[in-house]
Amino acid sequence: MQEMSPFVKAFQQTKFRLNGHGKREVGVLKEALLSISNQQESDIYGTGQVIEAFQRKMANYLGKESAVFFPSGTMAQQIALRIWCDEKGMQKVAYHPLCHLEIHEEDGLKELHHIDPILLADKDRLIELDDILNINEEIACLLLELPQREIGGQLPEYSTLEAISSYCKEKGIKLHLDGARLFEITPYYGKSASEICKLFDSVYISFYKGIGGVAGAILAGDESFTESSKVWKRRHGGDLVSLYPYILSADYYFEQRVNSMKNYYEGAKELAQLYNDCHQITTKPIKPVSNMFHVHLFGQKEHLEKILMEIHHTTGIGFTPYLREVTDHEYFYEVSIGDQYAAVPREEVKKAFSLLNKRMKELDLSIL
Amino acid sequence: MQEMSPFVKAFQQTKFRLNGHGKREVGVLKEALLSISNQQESDIYGTGQVIEAFQRKMANYLGKESAVFFPSGTMAQQIALRIWCDEKGMQKVAYHPLCHLEIHEEDGLKELHHIDPILLADKDRLIELDDILNINEEIACLLLELPQREIGGQLPEYSTLEAISSYCKEKGIKLHLDGARLFEITPYYGKSASEICKLFDSVYISFYKGIGGVAGAILAGDESFTESSKVWKRRHGGDLVSLYPYILSADYYFEQRVNSMKNYYEGAKELAQLYNDCHQITTKPIKPVSNMFHVHLFGQKEHLEKILMEIHHTTGIGFTPYLREVTDHEYFYEVSIGDQYAAVPREEVKKAFSLLNKRMKELDLSIL
Repeated sequence: MQEMSPFVKAFQQTKFRLNGHGKREVGVLKEALLSISNQQESDIYGTGQVIEAFQRKMANYLGKESAVFFPSGTMAQQIALRIWCDEKGMQKVAYHPLCHLEIHEEDGLKELHHIDPILLADKDRLIELDDILNINEEIACLLLELPQREIGGQLPEYSTLEAISSYCKEKGIKLHLDGARLFEITPYYGKSASEICKLFDSVYISFYKGIGGVAGAILAGDESFTESSKVWKRRHGGDLVSLYPYILSADYYFEQRVNSMKNYYEGAKELAQLYNDCHQITTKPIKPVSNMFHVHLFGQKEHLEKILMEIHHTTGIGFTPYLREVTDHEYFYEVSIGDQYAAVPREEVKKAFSLLNKRMKELDLSIL
Repeated sequence: MQEMSPFVKAFQQTKFRLNGHGKREVGVLKEALLSISNQQESDIYGTGQVIEAFQRKMANYLGKESAVFFPSGTMAQQIALRIWCDEKGMQKVAYHPLCHLEIHEEDGLKELHHIDPILLADKDRLIELDDILNINEEIACLLLELPQREIGGQLPEYSTLEAISSYCKEKGIKLHLDGARLFEITPYYGKSASEICKLFDSVYISFYKGIGGVAGAILAGDESFTESSKVWKRRHGGDLVSLYPYILSADYYFEQRVNSMKNYYEGAKELAQLYNDCHQITTKPIKPVSNMFHVHLFGQKEHLEKILMEIHHTTGIGFTPYLREVTDHEYFYEVSIGDQYAAVPREEVKKAFSLLNKRMKELDLSIL
């Protein structure tokens, strides 16, 4: 196991955190199980009350005919694309260059399913209707990720979504939603999850982002689609004898947090403003459209780490445990607002940002 | 959800059970978590103390250089075969016709990995050295399942294993162990798990058979093999953000039960004898070589169900919740001895078998 850097250590020792719901620790699972009877029967290889009831509940919530619980989104989404490709008899799909399948899955889609993706748009912007109109070969499926996480969680106009959906329907292209953060975008669009899902043929949602569960995902669509997905789930090795640890915690935190998404969104806007008011710091997007955004800081890494460590030490508020490089003079980190943000004393937040702004100014003037 | 048949219902209402460790219910997980601190940190995508320590412990137990925790054996074993095939540059393996990969995985090995298996031996017998000597094409890997579950849990002579292992080494064929029930065969062979594993290049073990955990598996081998397996685990969608619910329960029940395998084995021999003393009943194998065997009953299904239901009702001892057809006059079910067998009062067991024998005689004489 790796030694912890002084930077990570300073973050770990903070009392408050601006991001997330709290530590990923066993207490999260234990809390979810507290109200569950010891005699609650396990699901068994995808059957049984505990999995079937939750699948039904999520299908209803998403406005889809049927839903299947998966151990991971990686598995669920590869399978969704495979089913649509098989249906159309072509191994071609399209998605954003920073799609999860393209950058975080060790090329599972290509290595296991031999599906060839067309990368739409540039890395640093959203997919627009024109990008799709300009595809000059047939595709079986288009995947949209809402919000587009790797560029700070940006969203297209809702009318763009509608236009893309209509176009795909007309052209016989299946539209799949990477809705890992679907709950989180409903306040900005002012639409329910099922209204948004109506634009898509298939939908994946996650339970350990905004919902803050232990792990797990749902894949939803019409009945023949989800039935096929169960066969592929078994092939992938995801049809576990018992998925209930994930299902029960997903359900518990869904109930606890699904109605807090507006608060997280408002918190994100407020916090982004605090960052943007600081010298040499900007957020992407400037005005968040969900609970998430990226913070970009300009300066050398050692200086930025020194500033953040000072803030962590003196204010007890944790900003981030890492910095990722854009250039050797620009670094960023991701912010996702959860339950913790509202719990940080407002006065302390002000003090921390005042110190951050002061130090960033000094850094810019090279007097740090 | 399906209606429960009267036969299943009668079984469900029994007070004692001859098979297994008990019901698959949430209490199993809760018990395992009781002694775990709420502050115990989660594993994160295959890293962190909780997963790394257990992998190290299992590698040591199995006498292998390295081990990786997987959500399922289905995933672990397909990946093992894929790695060996890629290494040799051929998509050919060999295994038993009733291998788990052949009959329980919706052809994942073929559909995802395009690996072509040669089926060795007949369905109703073990693989012997001659079957391997007679393979007339090159293969990358041979998979042996110990014990061969679908034929009642039979085992080859240990000297056969040694001969197969030597032959494979000589011919450059990788030997993989499906050790879903590896713990359970150590008493019969009088060998430790690591002694047995020494004969194999890669090994999969399960934590919800004899160990009675919630789910999960370990794949072990040398370091370069397990490092490759982590890449494939991510591709399969098995590199979950948190696998700790399975890891912690696997570890808890491993500690609790790994030293009980001899008791389970002795129990299986005793129980098989009781069955074999009954009219028109035989076990496969006659003398178990692990904690498991199959019970074959001769008669029509409706009559056999009637007899078992009477036993369930009158003695409160549960024999089986299902009968599987061999012919329309022969049915069987699987027995796996766990913690429950020793807890059934001996006098009641005797009474139940005495009733079973009486009714099977009456059935044979058509006076039931």
